[in-house]
Amino acid sequence: VSVAAGDRFVHARGRSLPDLVWLRAGRPPTAPDAVVRPAGPGEVEAVLAACSAAGVVVVPWGGGTSVTGGVNPPAGPPVVSLDLERLSGLARLDPVSRLATFGAGTRGPALEAALAPHGLTLGHFPQSWELSTLGGWIVTRSSGQESLGFGRIDDLLAGATAVAPGGRLELPPLPGSAAGPDLRRLVLGSEGRFGVVTEATVRVAPRPAVREVEAWLLPDWGRGLAACRELVQERAPLALLRLADPVETEVALAVGLTGHAWAPAARAWLRLRGAGGGACLLLVGAAGREAAVEDALAAARSLLRRHRPARLGRGPGRRWLADRFRHPYLRDGLLDLGLATDTLETAAPWADLPRLHGAVAAALPEVPLLCHLSHPYPDGASLYFTFFFPCAAEPEATVAAWARLKRSATEALVAAGGTLSHHHGVGSLHAPWYPREVGEGGVRAMAAVARELDPAGVLNPHVLLDPADRLEEPGPPR
Amino acid sequence: VSVAAGDRFVHARGRSLPDLVWLRAGRPPTAPDAVVRPAGPGEVEAVLAACSAAGVVVVPWGGGTSVTGGVNPPAGPPVVSLDLERLSGLARLDPVSRLATFGAGTRGPALEAALAPHGLTLGHFPQSWELSTLGGWIVTRSSGQESLGFGRIDDLLAGATAVAPGGRLELPPLPGSAAGPDLRRLVLGSEGRFGVVTEATVRVAPRPAVREVEAWLLPDWGRGLAACRELVQERAPLALLRLADPVETEVALAVGLTGHAWAPAARAWLRLRGAGGGACLLLVGAAGREAAVEDALAAARSLLRRHRPARLGRGPGRRWLADRFRHPYLRDGLLDLGLATDTLETAAPWADLPRLHGAVAAALPEVPLLCHLSHPYPDGASLYFTFFFPCAAEPEATVAAWARLKRSATEALVAAGGTLSHHHGVGSLHAPWYPREVGEGGVRAMAAVARELDPAGVLNPHVLLDPADRLEEPGPPR
Repeated sequence: VSVAAGDRFVHARGRSLPDLVWLRAGRPPTAPDAVVRPAGPGEVEAVLAACSAAGVVVVPWGGGTSVTGGVNPPAGPPVVSLDLERLSGLARLDPVSRLATFGAGTRGPALEAALAPHGLTLGHFPQSWELSTLGGWIVTRSSGQESLGFGRIDDLLAGATAVAPGGRLELPPLPGSAAGPDLRRLVLGSEGRFGVVTEATVRVAPRPAVREVEAWLLPDWGRGLAACRELVQERAPLALLRLADPVETEVALAVGLTGHAWAPAARAWLRLRGAGGGACLLLVGAAGREAAVEDALAAARSLLRRHRPARLGRGPGRRWLADRFRHPYLRDGLLDLGLATDTLETAAPWADLPRLHGAVAAALPEVPLLCHLSHPYPDGASLYFTFFFPCAAEPEATVAAWARLKRSATEALVAAGGTLSHHHGVGSLHAPWYPREVGEGGVRAMAAVARELDPAGVLNPHVLLDPADRLEEPGPPR
Repeated sequence: VSVAAGDRFVHARGRSLPDLVWLRAGRPPTAPDAVVRPAGPGEVEAVLAACSAAGVVVVPWGGGTSVTGGVNPPAGPPVVSLDLERLSGLARLDPVSRLATFGAGTRGPALEAALAPHGLTLGHFPQSWELSTLGGWIVTRSSGQESLGFGRIDDLLAGATAVAPGGRLELPPLPGSAAGPDLRRLVLGSEGRFGVVTEATVRVAPRPAVREVEAWLLPDWGRGLAACRELVQERAPLALLRLADPVETEVALAVGLTGHAWAPAARAWLRLRGAGGGACLLLVGAAGREAAVEDALAAARSLLRRHRPARLGRGPGRRWLADRFRHPYLRDGLLDLGLATDTLETAAPWADLPRLHGAVAAALPEVPLLCHLSHPYPDGASLYFTFFFPCAAEPEATVAAWARLKRSATEALVAAGGTLSHHHGVGSLHAPWYPREVGEGGVRAMAAVARELDPAGVLNPHVLLDPADRLEEPGPPR
């Protein structure tokens, strides 16, 4: 148990834009009263029992990278931040069934390092991978950059243990079952509301010998969408697809994603090939044995041909692979320059994506807006938006400007049939829209589970099921 | 609304062995007081409201093929059988996203017939396909014979509407989401306990141009398991794998599955090749475009080579494809001959399968027991057992003999770490073991959802969450 001011400050906020703004100002709106680091499931249960009895709110803390307010202490009651860093490491490995059991507090790099000597990988690489934890991925239904090849965490989770004040869920790994609803899916996305995940068994795969990403330009957004859809529906054995819309493509070309100094020359050449202002950058990635990777990329080339693509080769892809965990840190550099940036993400069936893209753009007419498609499935895909706006002098005003944009865009994407989140989660920031996502019946079903497993209502009570708008939590007085 | 005696008799039982025994004796232990056939979701809601108010139990009825007591009216309260046959047919098709929306009462053949003109298929072929319905597949978490290629119903369900006395779940189709727990997974496996599915949107795929099944003999069960595991873990693009254990292989050879009259000659030849008494029959199936099917079977051949297989060609596979929906009807013929037969199915990680196979065999030492592996996944597979025993003179005694075997085998498979069911469901027959499957916390979470959505407790109250042993429900007095 730590009550050190530094520890409480570190556990005061996640990594949403308002979190960053408040942390940089040194004035987080709330902070936990204590940070507790249990050494095992038994200690987690003891903390939950004590906090339940005393009415102390428990906020489970994995990597602290939530961008939805998921780890921010609510204002009001006493709060303990339950840091799971000691529940870490590989507990068991079944190489025959390719199942690995880890403590929930295991971070991405430690998890992959434990699997590497066995020639195995989880293949789960969210942008937060360096800091975020297995337990965090599970309770927020995370999706890694190579979800097309390895699956999202929903698919990778084989079994889990979750402890709650009102009961314990021990779900052994099963490849498939018809024994009632799949309780793993109740843990996935529970955001700490139904218990604390202490251990999880995940499906692992052979470590790829090579990773290659080929870059292409497609003539326009419509053809880009069609190309991505065909690649996935034809089951090309790829690990990743990312299609930038025309604005994001322009920015990628301008900042040199397509290969440093020769970007202007490349653009001239591409215009000659017919790729005009509306062109869209497509990254096509494969991972595995070298021959399989080359076969997969060749299959993709053959399918892409009908869409008049211009091939940019593998340079941009290598650059992207090298930078893939760096982009979140750019936000700090931009804030130093007085520019705030945030992201929104959603998913919908293929037929609805053009309308969804247009609706979000229409909701944010006054700001630069980039978008890319990623995480494609046979029936649809995710759209990921990035927007920029100037910081105000005071954090309150910056957060207020952000909240206006966030509300407007979120309203638009929900109204256009997109899901509230494809891989960030609901947290407290999206919670006002959660009833729109699942309806009154869905909210009541989930609330019933929460009441049963957490009768005192102390487990992350402000996330998911509390519709209060917390976008503009006031900072403490100076 | 029908109260005709014939209608009530038809809706009196599902298709478990005791159901068959009682129906053939003309003495089902219970029957519904009325059969109601609503024309749409609004009428379903009206029936549920009326029954809730009057304390009348509602048993949803799809195809009536449950082998777990899932559609049998409980003894005691008045019961309505809610036959969903009028909620049938294709409501909407989105060919771009490959999503099709059907009424929940649509049977397998009607569903495929509606998709065929569009060149599409669901690819979901449980053995009950001719009679069972989309809604039934969803609430029992069904898995079709080609689940390896097309996925189980859990994967195929994109969206659903379920109505309950306490609320309605309207879940639009989404390719992926992180907006809280996946509520579709609460509908999947709910067995009528959380509401009545009225409509569902499923992920469809191009109709395969060809289906081919190649038959092999592997030297023994251990090598057979290893071969199946490798085929799946190496992601060979197959649609089905079925591995018979040595006993089931002997029976398959004896009844001529390997091709009519030449079976004895084939066996002699196979013995020469080293396939002795412990040999195991493996069916390897692929579906798709002709070239893709040949590529997939060639990939399988290449992977199988290291296991000293003997190739039996495509004759046995064609025979199996022709007969694949016929086997359930064999039970009637065997009962005519005085022989009762039933099946048990489970699933577990690959490393646990040999122990699980042995444990079930040890629990049923006195009866002929066949087993095959099917529905393989990278981390494990299903085992499907068939056992035989002589009928007694009276139905009571036959059911009692069956119940002894069923209890013994179910105890054994649960104790050995297998799931209570891979694709039949829990129903009322497996309900006594459900707490062993999900633990006390899991039962309480599910019961909380049931109470919330069905406050009067009228929706199939005897399945899933009621641990009473109903294996030997007494028949009515003569």
